[in-house]
Amino acid sequence: MSIALCPGSFDPITNGHLDVIRRAAGIFDKVLVTVFHNPRKTPLFTIPERMQMAREATADIPNVEVDSCDGLLVEYARSRGVNVIVKGLRAVSDFETEFQMAQMNRELEPSIETMFIMTKTENLFLSSRIIKEIVFLGGDVSRFVPPVVNTMLQKKKEGS
Amino acid sequence: MSIALCPGSFDPITNGHLDVIRRAAGIFDKVLVTVFHNPRKTPLFTIPERMQMAREATADIPNVEVDSCDGLLVEYARSRGVNVIVKGLRAVSDFETEFQMAQMNRELEPSIETMFIMTKTENLFLSSRIIKEIVFLGGDVSRFVPPVVNTMLQKKKEGS
Amino acid sequence: MSIALCPGSFDPITNGHLDVIRRAAGIFDKVLVTVFHNPRKTPLFTIPERMQMAREATADIPNVEVDSCDGLLVEYARSRGVNVIVKGLRAVSDFETEFQMAQMNRELEPSIETMFIMTKTENLFLSSRIIKEIVFLGGDVSRFVPPVVNTMLQKKKEGS
Amino acid sequence: MSIALCPGSFDPITNGHLDVIRRAAGIFDKVLVTVFHNPRKTPLFTIPERMQMAREATADIPNVEVDSCDGLLVEYARSRGVNVIVKGLRAVSDFETEFQMAQMNRELEPSIETMFIMTKTENLFLSSRIIKEIVFLGGDVSRFVPPVVNTMLQKKKEGS
Amino acid sequence: MSIALCPGSFDPITNGHLDVIRRAAGIFDKVLVTVFHNPRKTPLFTIPERMQMAREATADIPNVEVDSCDGLLVEYARSRGVNVIVKGLRAVSDFETEFQMAQMNRELEPSIETMFIMTKTENLFLSSRIIKEIVFLGGDVSRFVPPVVNTMLQKKKEGS
Amino acid sequence: MSIALCPGSFDPITNGHLDVIRRAAGIFDKVLVTVFHNPRKTPLFTIPERMQMAREATADIPNVEVDSCDGLLVEYARSRGVNVIVKGLRAVSDFETEFQMAQMNRELEPSIETMFIMTKTENLFLSSRIIKEIVFLGGDVSRFVPPVVNTMLQKKKEGS
Repeated sequence: MSIALCPGSFDPITNGHLDVIRRAAGIFDKVLVTVFHNPRKTPLFTIPERMQMAREATADIPNVEVDSCDGLLVEYARSRGVNVIVKGLRAVSDFETEFQMAQMNRELEPSIETMFIMTKTENLFLSSRIIKEIVFLGGDVSRFVPPVVNTMLQKKKEGS
Repeated sequence: MSIALCPGSFDPITNGHLDVIRRAAGIFDKVLVTVFHNPRKTPLFTIPERMQMAREATADIPNVEVDSCDGLLVEYARSRGVNVIVKGLRAVSDFETEFQMAQMNRELEPSIETMFIMTKTENLFLSSRIIKEIVFLGGDVSRFVPPVVNTMLQKKKEGS
Repeated sequence: MSIALCPGSFDPITNGHLDVIRRAAGIFDKVLVTVFHNPRKTPLFTIPERMQMAREATADIPNVEVDSCDGLLVEYARSRGVNVIVKGLRAVSDFETEFQMAQMNRELEPSIETMFIMTKTENLFLSSRIIKEIVFLGGDVSRFVPPVVNTMLQKKKEGS
Repeated sequence: MSIALCPGSFDPITNGHLDVIRRAAGIFDKVLVTVFHNPRKTPLFTIPERMQMAREATADIPNVEVDSCDGLLVEYARSRGVNVIVKGLRAVSDFETEFQMAQMNRELEPSIETMFIMTKTENLFLSSRIIKEIVFLGGDVSRFVPPVVNTMLQKKKEGS
Repeated sequence: MSIALCPGSFDPITNGHLDVIRRAAGIFDKVLVTVFHNPRKTPLFTIPERMQMAREATADIPNVEVDSCDGLLVEYARSRGVNVIVKGLRAVSDFETEFQMAQMNRELEPSIETMFIMTKTENLFLSSRIIKEIVFLGGDVSRFVPPVVNTMLQKKKEGS
Repeated sequence: MSIALCPGSFDPITNGHLDVIRRAAGIFDKVLVTVFHNPRKTPLFTIPERMQMAREATADIPNVEVDSCDGLLVEYARSRGVNVIVKGLRAVSDFETEFQMAQMNRELEPSIETMFIMTKTENLFLSSRIIKEIVFLGGDVSRFVPPVVNTMLQKKKEGS
């Protein structure tokens, strides 16, 4: 069975992430959507909140499992029997960061491959960061995120 | 009447910004230079200080008005009757960030266009960030900023 | 009156070009769509064919005029009273080529500005070159070009 | 059964191509290595020569089949039951060209996905073009290509 | 005597830095490896710790001297009689940042040149930031840093 | 004695090339300006014409020698006792091509280093190709090339 891993901060998950996850789910037998704890970032949502949003947003894709990881990504991948790490690419700056990460992961664990899918052109401008900015400036992001994320963003905004 | 909007942090305004504003003022009937409050950045100067510097630096350009905005840029633009947002481009990394922003703004408000002007080659290396760094390391930036900004930077440095 | 110039090989004009021309026509009083003779390229269509396709494709935009030029672009621009050259940007490689061209044109004629508009994300992958390739390999390009161009491409293919 | 397609000019196949093909063969059930006839390029080797070199170089990978195609890539892919087109990425310029191609292929045939693998860092500087240049200037390329290609390149050089 | 300056945060020094320093030491009479205090970064190691690691790691290169600087780099360079600042380049994003810095330094002090060496392909993915991340997530970085750095990183981790 | 090699097509030499050569001549004991025969390009000027223009344009720099090479660059460099190949960098696309070339040259001859100097911002838009285009379209390039090159370009134009 081929297992693909889609790791990310998912703070929160956007329609751009969902597009990549859906494509991966069409190619591989199983897709692990894993909320990765990045110690360098200060997230808006807790890990359980991010997992809950990812679960609701992917509920209609049968071969997706949502999980989390706070250690080294390649060790997590090995422990879960992952064959391929799948990342979305939007732009040249993504490309360079992902390239560096993929080379390093290959050094740390040569048996796990990294592959890239390009996002739909409609999603090229989407990022969790820009979504949060628009929400806190009072804009409407309902077209760019799944309904559960929109609701959670409004709650965070009212509570802030 | 064609109204162009030049938004930015302007923390502080540099000769690179002034070059772009001056070119825009030669093309459009009116140019709004709008100090934008970016909640993700910790500025050196307050909004009123940044507006004052922008006003003095553009005092000789009759069709420029200095303003500020702390909400969603496209809503501000609509409320002011803006036709075009004008941004300067220096490098590939600028290009990608601006591209993402322009696509998002077009999604949020299709009636407002974004256009780009390239800065003079002499200004390609200028940024507010690098100017502040040089000042705080004791360097002379008088060639890179208008006189009012140089004076204000020295005051900030002495006060820090 | 503000006059914008949209120069290009237009061999042939695509929906991506039309998107940029339409945006420019919404901002400036008049838009010159000028078929530029590039001596380094071997075109598929003659200059009159390219002009005819551009004329038909822009027939519904009242403030567009189609023209051609086989000399230095900035001299043509000056002779036609152009204020701004408007180019579309799709990608980093476009950006660098256009940047070099814009700087050179500014050196040759400082009174004419170059501005850039980003194409709609749906058109990011379009180019005259890729359109011609698909046609000659037997593919259908009717979604990517105006009807007149599709017809002309089929004729060229049958005649080749 | 998951079928991946690795298309290319392979004029000739290099160790960089082989690295990508080998990785794809470790992930997918079957890999089609398809010599693509690019009408815009003047190749050094004929299609049968390129196929022969690709066959010998991949003889030790059981799930690889070498084929050729002179039509539209996505139609070929559909006729062969391909799920995923797999391409290698080396650099930013690759990234942009491949991005444009992938978006266009998705437009032409939404059921076929394109994925990217990054080549080993040791192969980043390899290209068929640079290999041919070195050979014709008298350099030794035996470290960069499989033995059969080295032999064929020497023959071409002597015959030229 | 030609004196080259290799400045950096060196927080900590990696095999990628050492590769660049070693190449510079083969070209110039003397190489100054200068730990630069960047006021915008929060370092893991103190300046003396970073200098000690750099000294041990370069102990076998006779024409290297380790130093530190907390002022303007070009003034330091002039005071030390430096002819050339030597930087390593890994990627497009490095290129743009270094380009901006080099142009600014040339403006501030035209007599000091900046030159760039590309790192070995094996080191392309290395950065002090990624090394620190892997260590704190429990990974092994002994292949990517000199032994003294590996030991110091383990101590920092245990003490944190 | 440190010997630097500045290779290029120099078809013809521009003020951008001269800027890089002059900087190299200030750092290294001797600079070889070597007209390289690129079999993939169709030059405007013959090798002797290009050498003559390079010689006149560098006549005032005592430690420059003009030469030519039609074989493998690294073998030429070794035979002339070169320590460092020096190239100018203008843009991201230069960077990638030069990076690939430098890595390949290091593979072929590890004892010869490649270093890069950034050109003056005023020269960023200059290239031999664009210069030739402007001349043949009737433009004036006297600010961008040395006088001998301007004269030779006019002769070629009249003779064409």
